Amino acid sequence: MRYLAPEYVYTVQGWQSNTLIVINDDGVIEALREQHNPAGSECLEMPGVALLPGFVNVHSHVFQRALRGHTHRALSQSETFWAWRNAMYRAASQLTPGGLYELALQTYREMLAAGYTSVGEFHYVHHQPSGEPYANPNAMAEAILHAGRDAGIRVVLLLTAYAQGGFNRPLEEGQRRFSDRSVDAYLRRVEDLRSAGFLVGVAPHSVRAVPPEWFQPIAEYSRNAALPLHVHADEQVAEVEQCQAAYDCAPIELLERWGALSPRTTVIHATHASQVELALLARAGCTVCVCPTTEGDLGDGIAPYAELLTAGIPLVIGSDSNTRLDPLEELRWAEYSARMRYQRRRVLVRDELASPGSLLLDCGTRSGAQALGLATGSIEPGRLADFVAIDLSHPMLHGWNEQDLLDTLFFGCSTSVIKEVWVQGQRMSG
Amino acid sequence: MRYLAPEYVYTVQGWQSNTLIVINDDGVIEALREQHNPAGSECLEMPGVALLPGFVNVHSHVFQRALRGHTHRALSQSETFWAWRNAMYRAASQLTPGGLYELALQTYREMLAAGYTSVGEFHYVHHQPSGEPYANPNAMAEAILHAGRDAGIRVVLLLTAYAQGGFNRPLEEGQRRFSDRSVDAYLRRVEDLRSAGFLVGVAPHSVRAVPPEWFQPIAEYSRNAALPLHVHADEQVAEVEQCQAAYDCAPIELLERWGALSPRTTVIHATHASQVELALLARAGCTVCVCPTTEGDLGDGIAPYAELLTAGIPLVIGSDSNTRLDPLEELRWAEYSARMRYQRRRVLVRDELASPGSLLLDCGTRSGAQALGLATGSIEPGRLADFVAIDLSHPMLHGWNEQDLLDTLFFGCSTSVIKEVWVQGQRMSG
Repeated sequence: MRYLAPEYVYTVQGWQSNTLIVINDDGVIEALREQHNPAGSECLEMPGVALLPGFVNVHSHVFQRALRGHTHRALSQSETFWAWRNAMYRAASQLTPGGLYELALQTYREMLAAGYTSVGEFHYVHHQPSGEPYANPNAMAEAILHAGRDAGIRVVLLLTAYAQGGFNRPLEEGQRRFSDRSVDAYLRRVEDLRSAGFLVGVAPHSVRAVPPEWFQPIAEYSRNAALPLHVHADEQVAEVEQCQAAYDCAPIELLERWGALSPRTTVIHATHASQVELALLARAGCTVCVCPTTEGDLGDGIAPYAELLTAGIPLVIGSDSNTRLDPLEELRWAEYSARMRYQRRRVLVRDELASPGSLLLDCGTRSGAQALGLATGSIEPGRLADFVAIDLSHPMLHGWNEQDLLDTLFFGCSTSVIKEVWVQGQRMSG
Repeated sequence: MRYLAPEYVYTVQGWQSNTLIVINDDGVIEALREQHNPAGSECLEMPGVALLPGFVNVHSHVFQRALRGHTHRALSQSETFWAWRNAMYRAASQLTPGGLYELALQTYREMLAAGYTSVGEFHYVHHQPSGEPYANPNAMAEAILHAGRDAGIRVVLLLTAYAQGGFNRPLEEGQRRFSDRSVDAYLRRVEDLRSAGFLVGVAPHSVRAVPPEWFQPIAEYSRNAALPLHVHADEQVAEVEQCQAAYDCAPIELLERWGALSPRTTVIHATHASQVELALLARAGCTVCVCPTTEGDLGDGIAPYAELLTAGIPLVIGSDSNTRLDPLEELRWAEYSARMRYQRRRVLVRDELASPGSLLLDCGTRSGAQALGLATGSIEPGRLADFVAIDLSHPMLHGWNEQDLLDTLFFGCSTSVIKEVWVQGQRMSG
């Protein structure tokens, strides 16, 4: 047993002071005790510190960290998402298992220091550039998982299926290494990682890259194994138009038709989702992951935040291309983007008097944990002891009070206020 | 003389290495020498450091820092800018000269640590809450100027004129302390601050708060004294509608009619400016100041960035309500907001091959200095030695190269990468 005595801790009842956190030897929260009654030398006093649950980064492509700052010059005549994608493919073509390990190790360290204690890694660079598998077909996935372990961040590997270059189009040159030879070969790799004890989920890349004859068995596998299913949809207008042309419906309607919508499904982006699509997500109990810094970078547009909330769809966040790593900035700009779209204030800010608990914090923690199938995201007995320790004396926080501390944090701060980060009961930095 | 030898320095020719900066005893850059030829112990070697010009914060209301995080709960039934303004008026009503000094001192220290070396303080809380002047009518302005001096940041006091509560409407209770008894009384206070040697500008608050019989003498004073004139315009749709109702034209058209547009004029926000208004600004050589974090917070909408650029109107940035202090975030989200509005990439990112120099950096430095009438904002002989020292070994910058260093900084970093800040040849922090 280990005991932490922070000045404040954010529990399901809100901010608590004089609360002792009891952590067992598995790194799980055993109990919250109402008073500081330290059990001798094993109790760590944390004056001037407020503990939050660790942030959950639901959507990361870790290798894209290599592109940071290198895609803002003229890439082509038309400066679009698709030109950016070509630059990303060039970076992907350079990766080796060893190089990917180094890049992921360093990026995960930066991610952890930013307060993310868990990450969903949407991983699609699987094979040799020719498309030929490595001797170990999961060499690249394992490089990432080992980097996560060595950095100290919890990685859920969302192994990506990628079968075609667009609706009914063959793979392009730069996409060969993303693709397995068959859906069975893909599912075998998922199975192997699961058997080896890794945390995994399935991730059919998108309706444009995965045809129905792959999609359906993958969705079935996810149902049978109770694994998360993550999929990109509606990030770009062109994707919606191509889907309409190929199938006479929008991407999320196609997901529904293919049996891919369930409470374990997380749709990444949904920027251009229609009311019909949102209603399908709501009915099936799906989650939506927004990635504000990357969506801003790529010029995707602004997600239909108000409609998502009205439909009762849980929102989570992802750092996606990892051009920025700061959950506070992601959450702040989710809200600010929404304010720009609707030209009013307080879109994602719940009225705490009517409904206690911070919606922005939930997006960054509890709902994210649920989207990855993890027992973390809140500070309560039975959850993993993943914490972010906030330095209450930091100048950015000056003027905070207990009632508004989360808002001062989300709207006024960067990760500079994070003093240390804890994963499964272990202090990882500070 | 003092000599700095950073690893890199951003000059008007771009990044330079092996360049020695020579600073004279007035804190002015005397010369840039092509090689490291340190004059003995007076040369400060700065390995692993890249020097940028200090950032210029063109628009600040320093006391609004007290609202950080405290305006996101339900303020009223309708969650608008105008409800936020009531909360801000309540904060303004509490201020005393002593309290304002303390708040400004602390906020300016935070601002300086964030890399802003100069600030335009748009100051409007002038008198006692009743409207009665203090014994020293500039007591509040001097509190701010002394706080700036003690924090070590350069303050240009943009003394605000405020005469009415709206178009042809009397002052409201909470606005009394903003208003001078007459435009002459106001101009006398400007004159007094100038005579005392402070850096000042005039700031008729807006066309709704200042009638033509005040506006015209203020504009004339600015012309005669060659002082900056700053004015809010087109932040909110309601303001534009009220202006149309009262004068049958938009706010910037009214500014033109009242003789307030010149190369010394900076219009704050211009979020809802029409093409006609932008053409007037361009013709008169005016500057526009955007405030992305505050405009996001207040739900103002997204400025017409592409149209501003096409019209050749210089853009500058301000931290405005000081809810966030980070010039990198302001510049990143100026660009990202523009990408959201236009759903394409690279709106404010100049093609460096066609036209060297970073437009985002110019917005944050050189153009800002011009808007405040200051000889700073670039590292060249004759300019003030105001620098931000970037730590090139910071994990956020990993993977930088010389060609893309500014983009890696603007798109991938927070102010955590700032190692120290220099104002007029003096190291202020680090």
